[in-house]
Amino acid sequence: MSALTEKEYFMLEAIKEAKKAIEVSEIPVGVVIVKDGEIIARAHNMREKTQNATHHAEILAINEACEKLNSWRLNDCDMYVTLEPCVMCAGALILARIRKLYYGAKDERFGGVESIFRILDSDKFNHKVEYEGGIFEEECRNLMISFFQNLRNKKKIDKSE
Amino acid sequence: MSALTEKEYFMLEAIKEAKKAIEVSEIPVGVVIVKDGEIIARAHNMREKTQNATHHAEILAINEACEKLNSWRLNDCDMYVTLEPCVMCAGALILARIRKLYYGAKDERFGGVESIFRILDSDKFNHKVEYEGGIFEEECRNLMISFFQNLRNKKKIDKSE
Repeated sequence: MSALTEKEYFMLEAIKEAKKAIEVSEIPVGVVIVKDGEIIARAHNMREKTQNATHHAEILAINEACEKLNSWRLNDCDMYVTLEPCVMCAGALILARIRKLYYGAKDERFGGVESIFRILDSDKFNHKVEYEGGIFEEECRNLMISFFQNLRNKKKIDKSE
Repeated sequence: MSALTEKEYFMLEAIKEAKKAIEVSEIPVGVVIVKDGEIIARAHNMREKTQNATHHAEILAINEACEKLNSWRLNDCDMYVTLEPCVMCAGALILARIRKLYYGAKDERFGGVESIFRILDSDKFNHKVEYEGGIFEEECRNLMISFFQNLRNKKKIDKSE
């Protein structure tokens, strides 16, 4: 087995976060934020548990990183996330001045990087976030697929009881 | 003087919030969220005070409204905000299922509704937020202009001291 690259290593950490989301019946999206080779924030989607529409993994991780650095400017910070960020989260990455975004699977329903909008491609903002998708893409997509399959199966069982 | 319309009344409440932001040296953006004719959440921009990149007035007001209703779905809720929402906030409005957005001045640098992106015009999301801009546009724009003029003057004084 070949050694992991740095981006693979950190994406596996984001996948660990996504798996924590599954344990609490949240859509499996996980994030880590890395600065100088160290994880400074990690989060998973919490929308259902906290009943808050903005509690996507990316926003929660940005909140944690801003708190840790005591700064709204996350200079030299990279984000690793299992799913292509939505429009809200893509906007938040620009506002927080994230250096580079690495993501796993595309999100064809809500994606704000390449699927529905291409927010990070705009030259009109005062900060540009670099990005690269497709890291452990299949693993990240399978997390989503199996989560929604289980949800559908559970609903069928609930209805038949 | 003619009576205020409902949307003017609530925009004046959003302007009051924006003025609170000025008092604490934050960029003057104010928001109220209204359900069944009552204000259920109000907020102003807090990015500098909390050193959090996501603490725009809209996000803080959505957080408060979700907490109050104990639901991430802000059905039948309208938002009034003094400035055209940015991309992050426009995305958050869709995710929170806000019914209608009313805003004051355009934001030609960051606006996500009509200036840089037209997020709310997309038919690809599973919720559509109606919107109407230009309510007390001049008052809202003047808040921004005088805030930044004062900031520049203050910097000049600081430099000359």
